[in-house]
Amino acid sequence: MNSLVNRQWRLASRPSGQVSEENFRFVEEAVVGPSAGEALVRVKFVAFEPAMRGWLDDVKSYAPPVQIDEVMRASGVGEVIESNIDGVAVGDWVLGNFGWQEYVIVSAETHARTPLRRVPDGVAPQLMLSALGTTGLTAYFGMLEIGKPTAGDHVLITGAAGATGSIAGQIAKLKGAEKVIGIAGGPEKCSVLVEQLGFDVAIDYKSERVRRRLREECPNGVNVFFDNVGGQLLDDGLINMARNGRIVICGGISSYNDESVPPGPKYYMQLVARHLTMEGFLLFDYADKNEQALKDLGEWVQQGKIVHLEDIQSKIENAPKTFLRLFEGKNVGKQLLEI
Amino acid sequence: MNSLVNRQWRLASRPSGQVSEENFRFVEEAVVGPSAGEALVRVKFVAFEPAMRGWLDDVKSYAPPVQIDEVMRASGVGEVIESNIDGVAVGDWVLGNFGWQEYVIVSAETHARTPLRRVPDGVAPQLMLSALGTTGLTAYFGMLEIGKPTAGDHVLITGAAGATGSIAGQIAKLKGAEKVIGIAGGPEKCSVLVEQLGFDVAIDYKSERVRRRLREECPNGVNVFFDNVGGQLLDDGLINMARNGRIVICGGISSYNDESVPPGPKYYMQLVARHLTMEGFLLFDYADKNEQALKDLGEWVQQGKIVHLEDIQSKIENAPKTFLRLFEGKNVGKQLLEI
Repeated sequence: MNSLVNRQWRLASRPSGQVSEENFRFVEEAVVGPSAGEALVRVKFVAFEPAMRGWLDDVKSYAPPVQIDEVMRASGVGEVIESNIDGVAVGDWVLGNFGWQEYVIVSAETHARTPLRRVPDGVAPQLMLSALGTTGLTAYFGMLEIGKPTAGDHVLITGAAGATGSIAGQIAKLKGAEKVIGIAGGPEKCSVLVEQLGFDVAIDYKSERVRRRLREECPNGVNVFFDNVGGQLLDDGLINMARNGRIVICGGISSYNDESVPPGPKYYMQLVARHLTMEGFLLFDYADKNEQALKDLGEWVQQGKIVHLEDIQSKIENAPKTFLRLFEGKNVGKQLLEI
Repeated sequence: MNSLVNRQWRLASRPSGQVSEENFRFVEEAVVGPSAGEALVRVKFVAFEPAMRGWLDDVKSYAPPVQIDEVMRASGVGEVIESNIDGVAVGDWVLGNFGWQEYVIVSAETHARTPLRRVPDGVAPQLMLSALGTTGLTAYFGMLEIGKPTAGDHVLITGAAGATGSIAGQIAKLKGAEKVIGIAGGPEKCSVLVEQLGFDVAIDYKSERVRRRLREECPNGVNVFFDNVGGQLLDDGLINMARNGRIVICGGISSYNDESVPPGPKYYMQLVARHLTMEGFLLFDYADKNEQALKDLGEWVQQGKIVHLEDIQSKIENAPKTFLRLFEGKNVGKQLLEI
C-alpha cells in the first residue's frame, strides 16, 4: 500500500448541448494498489480529441458512452512506477486509455485485452498521442485510403490547424498535391499553416468569404476535401468540388455541441452533378495497415517532412478547461495536458 | 412544303418553387420543312423524368437550362416521315431529344452531333424511353457500378415504384440480394412492388413508420441504399445502414420543387460511425459501358427477368399535366405521353 493521492476528473452530468466544466467533478482519492496482477502508471500526458464529446452523450455509437461518476476517458502516456504484470517493467513509458487522472492501475486482464503500448526508445512520449498515435493514423488513413491525392490535385482541409488536419495537409503535399488549402479560424492559425506546415494557401473562415476564395484558388475545383468541421464549411467545399472529387468525412466539430442534430450538407446533390464520393471511416477499419502507417509516419517525422504541432496545457486541475479549448478553437495542433 | 400543324409546349416562365401548368405555353405552328439536309419526325412517345425540373431553373448544372420560349426539352421516340439526311430513312423509328411537340425537324448537323438512335427491330418504341433507355441505364449503372449488391445483401430503394427505382430493385434481386425493400407512397404502389416486381418488402411512407420498419426488416442494417428521393427518407435510410454500406445518390425528387435548397441529410455523420460511402453519378460517366448494359437489359426484359412498368398518358395537350404527375407521386413506372 502506498500513500499516493490520485487527483482525477469524473463525469458529473451529461451536457445538454454545449459541454462545460460543470459537467465534470474533481475527485481526490488514495491510490489503492497495485495488487497482484496489476501495474501502477503515473500519467504524464493526456490527449484531447473532439470525438470525446460524443462519449458524453448516452447514445449508441462506435464507442460506449462514459458513465456518470466514471473517470473521464482519454488516451494518455505515462511511466510504470510499480508492476506485478509480466512484461510490464518499472520505468517503461506506456500508452493506454488512462483517463483524466494522475495515476492509473492497470490489471493484467485489461492489459491482455488492450495491451499497454510501449513508447519506443528515442521517441518523445507525447508523440505517441499525436503524430505517431491515433491522430497521425487518422490523417494518414483518411488521406491515403480515401482521399488518395495524386500529383496535380487540389486538396482542401477544414480544421486545418487542428491535430489531424495539420498532418493530413502535409501528407497530401508529400504525395504531390499541387495545391493544399487549409481553412482555419484567425490570422494566427492561418499563418502557422503557411509558414510552418507548408500549406500553399490558408483561408480564415472568420474573416474571409470562403466560398469565393475557394472558387478563386481552385477554378477547376477541389479534387480531395478532408473535412473535420461540417456545417457551413462542408457546404462551401461541396459546391467547389471538381468532377470525380473525393470527400473524406473525418469529423464534424462544428456541431458536436448542438443540442439536436443540425441540418446536414444542403449541397449534397452535388454528389450527383459532379460524381463525387463522400466517405467516412474509423481507425480500426485499417488496423491491419497500422504497422506500415506508423513506420511511414515515424520516418516522415524523423526526416522533418511532417511538422507536428502540440498545444500543451498543464496541471490536472485544468483538464476540463483544456478539453473546452477544442470547441473554442483555441488549440493549434494536438491538444495535450501535461501533468 | 407540307400543310402539317405542329402542336407544342414552350417554356413560358420559370417556376419559383412548385412547377405548374402555367409555366408552359401551348403553341400551334405550321411545320416548315424539312429542307435539304433535314428530316421530319412524327413524335409518338414523350418521356418524363424528375430531373427535367432542374432544367427549368436558370442555374448552371450538368445540362443547360431550357430557355424561355424554347420548346420544352424531353426525350422521345417517333417515326421518320420525310428525310433528306443520308442514313435516316422514311419509316425508321428513332429516339432523340424531340421535346414536348408532335413534329420535330432534325438537321444533319444535329444528327451528326447527337445521332438519332434507331429503335432496333422487334423492340416496342416506348421501351427505348424506359427499360432500354436512360431509365434502365441509370438503374443499371447506379446499382451495379456503385451499389454493387452481392448475395445476402439487404437493399433499400426509395421511389421504388418510379421508373428507375422499380428497375434498380429488380437488378439487385437478379444479382442475388437477399432482401430488396422498396419504399413508395400508397398501398397501390406497394402492392405493385411485391406482387408484380418481386420486391421482398414494400413500405408505404405515407402510412408507416419507415425508420422503425427498416430496423425490423434489417436488424443488421442495409447494405445498399439506392436513393431517388432525399429528404426525410434519406435520413431514415442513413440511420439504418450496415457497416461498410453503400449509398447511391440517384435523385432527390422530394426537394426538386423547393424554392430554396433544403437542409441536407442530417445523419450524414453516420458515414463515419459505420464507414459508409455515399456517391452520385451521371449517365455519361459510364458511356463506355453502354453497349454491354443495353445488351444485359435487353436480355433481362426479353427473358421476363425485368418487368417494366409504364404509365402512359395521352394527347399532347396534356404534356404539362403529365409532367406534374411525377411530383404528385401519381405515376407507377415510367411516365410517358403517347401522342
